[in-house]
Amino acid sequence: MGVVATQSDSKKSQPSIQPLVNLVTGGMEQVNQIILSKAGSNVELIPEIAKHLISSGGKRLRPMLTLACADMFGYQGDGHVTLAASVEFMHTATLLHDDVVDESDMRRGKLAARKLWGNQASVLVGDYLLGQAFKMMVDVGSLEALRILAEASAVIAEGEVLQLGAAKNIATSEAEYLRVIEAKTAALFAAAAEVGPVIAGESDAMKKAARAYGMELGLAFQLVDDALDYGGSSADLGKQVGDDFREGKITLPVVFAVARGTDEDRTFWKRCLETDGIQDGDLEHAIELLGKYDAISDTVQRARDYGSGALKALEKLPQGAHTDALADAVAFCISRVS
Amino acid sequence: MGVVATQSDSKKSQPSIQPLVNLVTGGMEQVNQIILSKAGSNVELIPEIAKHLISSGGKRLRPMLTLACADMFGYQGDGHVTLAASVEFMHTATLLHDDVVDESDMRRGKLAARKLWGNQASVLVGDYLLGQAFKMMVDVGSLEALRILAEASAVIAEGEVLQLGAAKNIATSEAEYLRVIEAKTAALFAAAAEVGPVIAGESDAMKKAARAYGMELGLAFQLVDDALDYGGSSADLGKQVGDDFREGKITLPVVFAVARGTDEDRTFWKRCLETDGIQDGDLEHAIELLGKYDAISDTVQRARDYGSGALKALEKLPQGAHTDALADAVAFCISRVS
Repeated sequence: MGVVATQSDSKKSQPSIQPLVNLVTGGMEQVNQIILSKAGSNVELIPEIAKHLISSGGKRLRPMLTLACADMFGYQGDGHVTLAASVEFMHTATLLHDDVVDESDMRRGKLAARKLWGNQASVLVGDYLLGQAFKMMVDVGSLEALRILAEASAVIAEGEVLQLGAAKNIATSEAEYLRVIEAKTAALFAAAAEVGPVIAGESDAMKKAARAYGMELGLAFQLVDDALDYGGSSADLGKQVGDDFREGKITLPVVFAVARGTDEDRTFWKRCLETDGIQDGDLEHAIELLGKYDAISDTVQRARDYGSGALKALEKLPQGAHTDALADAVAFCISRVS
Repeated sequence: MGVVATQSDSKKSQPSIQPLVNLVTGGMEQVNQIILSKAGSNVELIPEIAKHLISSGGKRLRPMLTLACADMFGYQGDGHVTLAASVEFMHTATLLHDDVVDESDMRRGKLAARKLWGNQASVLVGDYLLGQAFKMMVDVGSLEALRILAEASAVIAEGEVLQLGAAKNIATSEAEYLRVIEAKTAALFAAAAEVGPVIAGESDAMKKAARAYGMELGLAFQLVDDALDYGGSSADLGKQVGDDFREGKITLPVVFAVARGTDEDRTFWKRCLETDGIQDGDLEHAIELLGKYDAISDTVQRARDYGSGALKALEKLPQGAHTDALADAVAFCISRVS
């Protein structure tokens, strides 16, 4: 579980993100330079916090999508690099605000920014990065890309508010939960992919296919994360196992377990997730219930289904090294948990 | 102090915002409609919070600046209305985040949104409104207006982070404080005014003059607010007297009083503003010290100076009913405190 493939692994035996990483190496170096320079400010707390987050080594999957989805059309400018950096800034801003909203202590295996600098700075530096993201998009000059990313920005926040309502409510349905993650996670993956063909001046059909790929991958990615939160090891995930449980988050594994459980089980979930009444041993019991009702394996199955959807969308894009690498990314994403 | 002028007051005897309100009535009705429709969402918490803030009756000075600064050039489209609504959304988003950052209890005489719905919802609904603001700007289609407002968005956040550093530090200098308010308040006034000539397709000289007017008015406005916080009555200001004091905010009156005070005074300010050590009677003593060192009257004088700067900038714009009304707005703003 959670084994990260290395470059030497053969593609067949171990799905890997490496082909994608290799394809966009040059562009990602530029993205990283832009990120470091645009996270600068003579207000010193801003680069300090931004660099903490940015150097803490997320996979940078979203900006890689933007680069790959422009490169596959032979795009020659540098607008895709700036858009990719904007996408990562939007994501980083979301993380900063999320940690405040979720009262998280850890992020990618490090103390969350809010624990180091406080909630106030996390809110404001998130706002700053979002402002910088929009400035960078304006520099690119594509109103269509701006529209797609501005829409994503509003939709992400909407999804987070929706999740706030769903949190601590074990009656959340699968459909409601999917609506949350489509907005809060998948919408940015979709936008990140879509702006590739947009900046390359491609047809609506290409934009739609790239968007669909990003959306389905984003859904798969989030569901794998949800499953890992109850099953991965802390080191693999960069956060503690059971974070979602402790924060009262209702994720798909819980939705399944609640729906399939007994009245007694429901009382347990209610106490743990709705009333902050978690006691020693509760997480272990939760994991036991999730196993008993196939809640984790069915969540992973859903992730596989979305992964298949992503692969189908890829078929409509120009076939080659980029679509191959993006297909590997889907397999890699799902392999984290299975 | 804080007397609000009514329509029947003559212009000479009592400065009034009413001429400006009258000039942009039609546009502001459209702005209000856009605001109400774009604050909508099928995530019900969003319109609930947005409407609470929007209906709580701020003066809507910023969107009025946008309308007036486009109308004065005979602009005929409706882009200015959409931009004005975006400006108000940006402002509202800032208020939501500010209340969280400042841990404020009141906003415009009502309970702050964070007291009613929590910090989490305030952060996220602010993010949503910001996303909507950018979507609306994209709809207008002016990359130049987008650049100006995106820049303002980043600068406002930068100013807030700067203020966070200055908060609880009584060694803050006048220059440092002015830098904070230029960023956190005046930058949006400046952008709101500048996008008027931008959308009307006017020359750089006109854009520069409108921007300068907004900037100077914004500085005057903030300094008057700072003075009122120690001198206005609670009902006039929509917040309690002494809010800044209780929140440990260093504003210009305090900067003056600290610089001019004795060692004993400095010990007092240090205890109150740096260490959360406020006791009964401290606010009264603070107000006494501010009076003793002319800290309020000198702050108001600075506001008057910026007001004069705003009037000077107006002279470069096409003279007529709009520049007259904008001049009245400057006088009105300063009359709130003197």
